[in-house]
This record gives sequence, C-alpha cells and structure tokens, in this order.
Amino acid sequence: MRLIRKGYKPKEELVATFYAEPAKNKDFISVLESIARESSIGTWTSLRTMTASAKKLAPKIFYWDEKKHIAKIAYPQDLFERGSIVQILSSLGGNIYGMKDVKNLRWLDIEIPESFCKAFKGPAFGIEGVRKHFKVKDRPLLGTIVKPKVGLTPKQHAKVAFKAWLGGCDLVKDDENLTDMRFNRFKKRVEETLKMKEKAESITGEVKAYMPNISAPADEMLERAEFVKELGGSYIMIDIIACGFSGLQFIRNQNLGMIIHAHRAGHATFTRNPKHGITMLVLAKLARLAGVDQLHIGTVVGKMHGRKEEVLCIHKALKEPLGKLKSVFSVCSGGLHPGSVPALLKIFGKDIIIQAGGGIHGHKLGSEAGAKAMRQAIDACLEGIELSEYAKTHRELAIALKQWC
Amino acid sequence: MRLIRKGYKPKEELVATFYAEPAKNKDFISVLESIARESSIGTWTSLRTMTASAKKLAPKIFYWDEKKHIAKIAYPQDLFERGSIVQILSSLGGNIYGMKDVKNLRWLDIEIPESFCKAFKGPAFGIEGVRKHFKVKDRPLLGTIVKPKVGLTPKQHAKVAFKAWLGGCDLVKDDENLTDMRFNRFKKRVEETLKMKEKAESITGEVKAYMPNISAPADEMLERAEFVKELGGSYIMIDIIACGFSGLQFIRNQNLGMIIHAHRAGHATFTRNPKHGITMLVLAKLARLAGVDQLHIGTVVGKMHGRKEEVLCIHKALKEPLGKLKSVFSVCSGGLHPGSVPALLKIFGKDIIIQAGGGIHGHKLGSEAGAKAMRQAIDACLEGIELSEYAKTHRELAIALKQWC
Repeated sequence: MRLIRKGYKPKEELVATFYAEPAKNKDFISVLESIARESSIGTWTSLRTMTASAKKLAPKIFYWDEKKHIAKIAYPQDLFERGSIVQILSSLGGNIYGMKDVKNLRWLDIEIPESFCKAFKGPAFGIEGVRKHFKVKDRPLLGTIVKPKVGLTPKQHAKVAFKAWLGGCDLVKDDENLTDMRFNRFKKRVEETLKMKEKAESITGEVKAYMPNISAPADEMLERAEFVKELGGSYIMIDIIACGFSGLQFIRNQNLGMIIHAHRAGHATFTRNPKHGITMLVLAKLARLAGVDQLHIGTVVGKMHGRKEEVLCIHKALKEPLGKLKSVFSVCSGGLHPGSVPALLKIFGKDIIIQAGGGIHGHKLGSEAGAKAMRQAIDACLEGIELSEYAKTHRELAIALKQWC
Repeated sequence: MRLIRKGYKPKEELVATFYAEPAKNKDFISVLESIARESSIGTWTSLRTMTASAKKLAPKIFYWDEKKHIAKIAYPQDLFERGSIVQILSSLGGNIYGMKDVKNLRWLDIEIPESFCKAFKGPAFGIEGVRKHFKVKDRPLLGTIVKPKVGLTPKQHAKVAFKAWLGGCDLVKDDENLTDMRFNRFKKRVEETLKMKEKAESITGEVKAYMPNISAPADEMLERAEFVKELGGSYIMIDIIACGFSGLQFIRNQNLGMIIHAHRAGHATFTRNPKHGITMLVLAKLARLAGVDQLHIGTVVGKMHGRKEEVLCIHKALKEPLGKLKSVFSVCSGGLHPGSVPALLKIFGKDIIIQAGGGIHGHKLGSEAGAKAMRQAIDACLEGIELSEYAKTHRELAIALKQWC
C-alpha cells in the first residue's frame, strides 16, 4: 500500500513537516512511507488483519524535497483522539524516531485545522487576559526567579520575592527544581510569599503575582493548585516536559481560573539537535492547545541555546491564529540582565515577559536594586533612550551595566 | 564557589554520570561546574541572596575524565523532592541540556542510594508477580500488539486478540496510538476484548491478559483504569514518555492492584543521539522507581535502533537490586518474528516478554497461526533444537521462517 500522493491538497487533516535522513542504503521515498505508516496505521510487514476502514485512515505524503530532506504528511483527524495531546505524541512524536530505517528524523512543524482545535481548551487567559490581570497594557512584563535556585527557607524566599516586587517586578516565580523540599515546604512557602505579595501590592499600588511551582504527580499538583487558590493566588507554574502532558492537561481541564505559567526544563534533550527530535515550535503549539498561558521560548541573547529565527518563529506562532484559541505570552528567561533588554525588545517587541534571575539577585546592591535596574532598562527602551544615557540619572541601572556589560 | 572535589566518596548522595562536551573555547572543568550549578543551587552569576544553608546543598564533582568527556557528580538528597520523579527530571534532566556552555551533554547513568528509594513505590508486581499471575515459571512470556495499529472496530480488535491468545500469546496489547478513537471507543473495546480473553482462557486453560492503553490526561487515565478493573482486567498500559511522569506516578500511587505495562514511544527523540540527551538506562531506572512492572527496552534484532551492550545493560539494571524495589520485566518489541527468537533468548535469557505484532498478524495463515509459530520458536529454543529442525514437524513455524528469514 503506497502512501505517496504528490500534489495532494490537505483539507481537514493535520499536517506534519519532517526532516528525514534515511539510513545507509535506504531510499528516501520508502523511508518516508515507513515513517508515515509507523506513525499511523502500519507496521513493518503486510498484515492479514488489514481492513478497508483501516486503509481509509492512511496518511498521505503530499510534498517532499529529497535534497533538503523535507517532507509533509497529511494525517486524517480520526487518527487522533480528540482533546488528547498524549495521543498526538504517541503517534507523531512516538516510535518513528527510533526506527533503524532513519538516520535522523526531526518533527519540524505541525499545522492544525480549526475543526481539530475545538476539542482543546487552549489558554484560559492568554496575552490579553494576563495584561488585564496586571492592568498593564503596553510594556513588557517583568518577572524574576527567586535565587539561589534552592536552599532558602520559606521566609527567606518570601523576603527575596518581596524585594523584587518592590523594585518593580510584576511576577516572581519559583525555580524549576524548587517544589516541596525538606528545607522549604511548598505550603509554607506559598503562605509566606503570598503574604509578602499583598504587602508589596499595597506599597507599590501595582498588581503583583507569585507563580508557585506545583510540578509533581498529578493529584499532588491539583492539591497544590487548590491550596494556592484558597490563599488568593492567581498563578500556578508547571514544568511541562518534566511533568508531561497527561498531568498538564489534567490541571488545565479543571478550569481552576488560574493563570498557567509553563516552564520547559528538559526540552533541549530533544529540541537541540538540528537534525533529530522535535522542535520547540511543535512543542509550543501543543502547549497552546493544552492551554498554558505563558511559555518559556528562549532568549537569543541569554545563557541558553536557541537561534534567533527559531525563537522568533515560536514567538510568532504563539500569537498567530490557531482555531479560536487564545494566544500565549512568550517568556524570555535565562541569563538575562538589564543590558539584555534593548536587544530583547528589538527582537520580540513588547508582548513578552522578561525574566531575570541572577540578573536581578546578583545586582551589587541586592534584589530590589536589581529589579529597579531592569525596570529602568525597560523604561529607557520604551522612551527610546540609550541605556548608557538613561544610566546617568538612574543609579541602579548604572551599577548593573558596569557589572554585566 | 568551587564544586570540584577530586576523589570524594559519595555516601548518601545521588550520583549522576554525564558525557559533557564543552562549547568552543570553554574549559572542561568550568563547564562541569556550570552543569553542577545549573542542576542544583546555582545560576550564572554570583548572588547577593546566597545563604550558608544553600551552600550546604552544593553538589560535588568527584570524578572526571577530560579525554572521554565523562564526569560524575554527587547530589545531596535534599536537593530532591521525596517521591517525585518530576522534580528529579526538572533538576538533572532539565535546563542543563540547553546551556550555551555545552556543545553536547548526555545524562548517562544515575545511582540511587537505598535510603532515597524508600520514598518511591516501585513495581507492585515485578517479574515475580507477573510470573505468578500467569503461572508461568520458566519460559519467556509471549505478547502481541493488535494490528493494524489503528483502524479496527472494537469487535474486530477483540477477534484479532482472541486468535492471538488461542495461538499461544499470553498477553495482547493495544498499540501506542490506539486510545479512545472515534472508530474504536475505549470502553467498548475493553468490554469486547476482555470478553474474548475469558473465552480464550476457558478454551486454552492458560491465564491470558489484555493490556488496554489508558494513556490520556490523568483523570481520564484513572477513569479508564478503574473501568478496566471493574470489568475484571488485571493490566493497564501507559505510554510513559507521551504521558509523562506526573500522570504515571499518579496512576501508580492509586494502588489499583493492576499490573502496569510501560510503552516508551518518543524516547528516541532524546535517547538516540549518543552524545546528547538522556539514556534509556536512566529512564528505565526512573520508571522502576515510579513503579512500572513491564518496560519496553529494545530488541537489538528488530526494527528499532538500540546497540546490544546498551539494551543488555538496561535489561540487567531492571533486575539488579535497587533499594528494596521489585524488579521490572523487560519487554522486547518492534519488528520481531519467529526467526528472531533464538537471538533474543541468547542475548537476554528467559526473563523477557517477547512481543511480536506484524510478526504474528502478518503470518500467511493469520494471527492464530502466527502466535503458534512464535510459541513453537520459543519451545524449540527452550528444548535446544534449531528452528529449521523444529520447523520440520511444526507447520506454522515452517511457514513463518519461509516468510521472514
């Protein structure tokens, strides 16, 4: 059974784009057919049990470029369980990457028809909802991660968060490896930190948010989320790769009325090799379907790997129409400091959340001054003033630039 | 703060072994320190918020071989949340793979002290429990996957399973991309298939098992598992990478008294590149901690990539002492047929589950004959008779060998 249909125009199918390098002595087209089969109805040998209705579910390889190793495959919607990212991953993100027939295989992109999006919740808030929450219309939001990553007590943690809010951060998040620790219990930390959040709000007159890391076995995640909500928290943070989509969708589907911040620790285990694995773009689209409101996308300029075109493409995809789903707020995080701000705004525009951890808490005068320096850098950019110029009248920024630039 | 402690002997720490290639112009030791820091307490700059108690959590790089790019790092237990694989992944399987400082980074192995294992459930049944369930002491178990992967109706599915059981299969599983589909609803399929399982048991006098794929958002998974249990099923199948550990641990922690079969679709997105990502060995150890009873490990001889030493090492690790946790049954699956059996038994011994999909349902005389041929191949090996010799008196095997060898 051949799956090649050159020039076919997909209608209501999901379209996956792959980069595929055949193994030695394997023919490109037959390898594409192996990929299409293994990710849908097929197996490696002809079957006595094959039926006509199974054949109807066969995908179509409708475009390929052997030189560039690119192919596009259209998969009928009925190959997928409605509303389950897990099953999409089992199919298109599954066995095919381990096949001996392929030397390298990378899932580059996915196009999802509007009719298929309907089964997914998507973001409950999205960019607009988050902006409304903070009553901040036009500037990038500023976030920080409490540092050191782990090791602080709940009270110390809350104090660091407080200073960051006072200095001008909108959001404060836990680090990805800080969950419910012996030295820092989740509930105690949330209590202490939310208390300080209220205090910071009443002092600054700004809306502030704390994003506690609820990542854990699914039932425990829900318990933690409900605890945060009871105490008046509006945000939860989930490490979506470490948890997986089964846990993420479970939480989203509860309709807790809380904003979901998605961290992506571990993505680089499968996104980094340019010839193999799954791209962050695909992951970002799936995370949007599942319903995160904010997603780490890379920084281009920070400590983490990520080519400019690639990160920009993700940023755009999170805002482009996708069925009727809300857009996702891009989060730039990792190795950022005030000196990084102009480049970030130039690359991404204003619809980003800029997160600095070390670049705030490493400031010579401490976290509050660090946050101030970041806000000053943002203000300077929005006013179109060079940082070096702005620093002449803004001491915290001046110190930061001296420290890191 | 330096993290190098040459010759240090870890006691109660978790020990992670990494393959690490520094980026251009980066020094090996300083890159190791970046890795150790980013996976624990640290960040990229010195902090004003660092405390003495956080410093106590610092990991120790106690062994390295610059030529081979290998390093071993000891992480204090308090860096990890007790009982949560998710948090281990956020730390050791997290940000470090995306750092610009490293060109390639691969997590090769993890050693877990007994005291740390206690917080995890581990397998509820393990090899012994599974063997007891089937009342099969000495031979490899035989499983199949209903084929085609998707496209059959519940009744067609149940019939294919029935034939496979009659022919000699112990286990029948759903394919990884078959969950709750429009053309094959989960509940209907489980009803039909379990009915045929009982029938097959009463005809053959053997214990048979059906492993329905419950992979889905976590609450849905639990509902599906409970449905299977109500109908008398003893097994559930979870696609552990597609679902993630948050969902897997949630299900295991329910203590449903059901055997958990773990499929691993998608692992090759991060296990296949020999220089980057996470090894299947690490994943297998984490899956054992979480509590799967059976795990796909590769075949060496089938359609899926996996070097012999590597797959053998995983097979051994699943049986070696790990705290007081039970062992995990290795599953060999992917492109197998009767001709593969002698090599499999030679490589892995008897404690394996041999799964053939196409190698059973592709048999010229159909699924029942296909299963018979597989059992004949197993019997031949256990009796020390060459397949070609055994085939002289066993027609189904003879046909299979002619078809595939």
